[in-house]
Amino acid sequence: MRPKMTIMMINSGLDGVVVAETRLSMVDGERGELIIAGVPVEELAANATFEETVELLWGESVDLSSRELPPFAIEVLRECARNRVDVMDALRLGLECSTQNVAQTLLSVRPALDEPMHTGFRPPECAQTGVSVPHHRILAIFPTIVATYWRLLNAHEPIAPRSDLSHAANYLWMLRGVAPSAEETRGLETYLNTVIDHGLNASTFTARVIASTGSDLVSAIVGALGALKGPLHGGAPGPALDMVFEIGDASRAEEVLRRKIESGEKLMGFGHRVYKVRDPRADVLNAAAHRLFTRGGDLALYELARAVEETALRLLEEYKPGRRLQTNVEFYTALLLHGLGLEAPLFTPTFAISRVAGWLAHCAEQRATGRIIRPQSVYVGVSAALRAQ
Amino acid sequence: MRPKMTIMMINSGLDGVVVAETRLSMVDGERGELIIAGVPVEELAANATFEETVELLWGESVDLSSRELPPFAIEVLRECARNRVDVMDALRLGLECSTQNVAQTLLSVRPALDEPMHTGFRPPECAQTGVSVPHHRILAIFPTIVATYWRLLNAHEPIAPRSDLSHAANYLWMLRGVAPSAEETRGLETYLNTVIDHGLNASTFTARVIASTGSDLVSAIVGALGALKGPLHGGAPGPALDMVFEIGDASRAEEVLRRKIESGEKLMGFGHRVYKVRDPRADVLNAAAHRLFTRGGDLALYELARAVEETALRLLEEYKPGRRLQTNVEFYTALLLHGLGLEAPLFTPTFAISRVAGWLAHCAEQRATGRIIRPQSVYVGVSAALRAQ
Repeated sequence: MRPKMTIMMINSGLDGVVVAETRLSMVDGERGELIIAGVPVEELAANATFEETVELLWGESVDLSSRELPPFAIEVLRECARNRVDVMDALRLGLECSTQNVAQTLLSVRPALDEPMHTGFRPPECAQTGVSVPHHRILAIFPTIVATYWRLLNAHEPIAPRSDLSHAANYLWMLRGVAPSAEETRGLETYLNTVIDHGLNASTFTARVIASTGSDLVSAIVGALGALKGPLHGGAPGPALDMVFEIGDASRAEEVLRRKIESGEKLMGFGHRVYKVRDPRADVLNAAAHRLFTRGGDLALYELARAVEETALRLLEEYKPGRRLQTNVEFYTALLLHGLGLEAPLFTPTFAISRVAGWLAHCAEQRATGRIIRPQSVYVGVSAALRAQ
Repeated sequence: MRPKMTIMMINSGLDGVVVAETRLSMVDGERGELIIAGVPVEELAANATFEETVELLWGESVDLSSRELPPFAIEVLRECARNRVDVMDALRLGLECSTQNVAQTLLSVRPALDEPMHTGFRPPECAQTGVSVPHHRILAIFPTIVATYWRLLNAHEPIAPRSDLSHAANYLWMLRGVAPSAEETRGLETYLNTVIDHGLNASTFTARVIASTGSDLVSAIVGALGALKGPLHGGAPGPALDMVFEIGDASRAEEVLRRKIESGEKLMGFGHRVYKVRDPRADVLNAAAHRLFTRGGDLALYELARAVEETALRLLEEYKPGRRLQTNVEFYTALLLHGLGLEAPLFTPTFAISRVAGWLAHCAEQRATGRIIRPQSVYVGVSAALRAQ
């Protein structure tokens, strides 16, 4: 039995506060271990298809064949593109607009994990928006929304999804209209498997808080997307790659990195709230990037990144001894996704394409507890300064 | 000094866990006290305008004059109405579609409380969606979105906002195209003031978790709306009123309520997670409802509701002694809003019209801490059952 009592400091980050039991993933920050649905990430990521990983996580067979967007969602994405809306915001809108009237169209789908939900009173004649949207459908349309919007943003017409391709391969297909190679699909699947779930990070926790009120899945996922957008959460892979490009040549790494550290700049791609040793995902993605760049026949960028990493770790230890700043998942995410031809604004949305599977599973777990998440605050305002609630 | 250490039980609801310091409101569930920005709710609610309450809460003067929706948002709401989308979902979409391209149109507005935000990497040519949307604009457009959508849902053309009316009066104007009486405006303002903030309820906490990642205000508010939709959170005023109508006559109250309690049905409008004595907001709203129905010249429904409440409290004490189930805010919310002519599907959206002011203030508070909210979970899945993270 694990201990049921613990001692906490009041803090605004909930560090060390245990909020939930989960069967989805285990993050051991001290040992640098990540287990996803019972399987160490090192074993899972490079071997399973994304569909297999989702089935493991959800404990059921998955059907990701419902990939098309309704015309209304495409129209809204078109308008977003005209206004140069951020890709994450467009993904959120695309999700909402794709799940507005699906109650009817999806009635034939078998009852979902999350089906018996009430979202409060509403006019009886209203479509039960989001309520009966199965988690399969939400997961299935994420790549379509991102790829559709990305093409519209770049003044290309969207490419329809192909049902003969896997979830990962179809995403690359929709982005560029060229079927990916087996190596590319494997590279993307390795990435998607690696980041599918990771304990109670802020976006997953957001999804659980929303789900805890009895709200619908779309609401929970929409909230999680908003949290993932935050630069303290999902926002660092782009800058990590920028840093590698800025350095440009391994011979400049030490000089540039010393200057950054001495001017107080944070090195993107290093350090993690939970991991105090090497993030196990970094090794998995490093290996995948190496494989991908080797097959591609040009290892220059990969080797530059390795040199930057090595130098950064040495200098961080020199300048900040004992801080245990290690390479995190974002450093090699950037390298791998860049190797797959994805531009930086697609990094966080691609992260979301995977993590949404974890969010959905956490919603089901949270809902099963039947508890609303309702912490407390201490009042420090005027006229009652000494009274704590 | 308040104690910095506390002992907690691990639980899935974060009961009793103190997550934040706030100067916004103090909820004392044992004494039945609610202080909003330093003022007891009893003093504040019936006397201040909504604008005055917001200024007190935000600690700055507010400008709610930017009330118009962009044509794109109205088009999306029109499509939602065709699909009979839930009002809360439409409110969320309307907010997102009204704040997509405001970066340009709002550049002339003075820098906001929340201005210096980064929402991660994005193409330089993209509008900084949501980033520079001042909290004033978000608060200002909520009534317009709700009223516009409600009219479209009922096959009426939207009514443009009037800048010569207060925030509350303009909302009633836009709903029906008839200027409200002073009593009606006072009744709505009392309601809005009463529910503007309430510690770390689930939607406010959602907003803080999202804001803690450094994400934008629209993302935080969109997440909070999703939480407020949940029937365990914002979803009970409608059913509370339904129960009063179902009883229909005071003479039937005891019989109907006994049957409900004996069949295990929960009485809507009674009991609260935090309040163990009478919810102070119930008295404020009761008085406001009494005033409104008195002016309206027909106290029948008000008196029926009072009789139902009295009987319910007596029976709850009889059947569940010691459970301390008291009348909560939802019971009189339903009565008051019904008295203002609002239909039940508008209750939770009207709640949101007020509470969004609290959410926005909490976002600023959370952001000032500079901490991401990242709790932990305990892994209980296969192959590592005995290992806790």
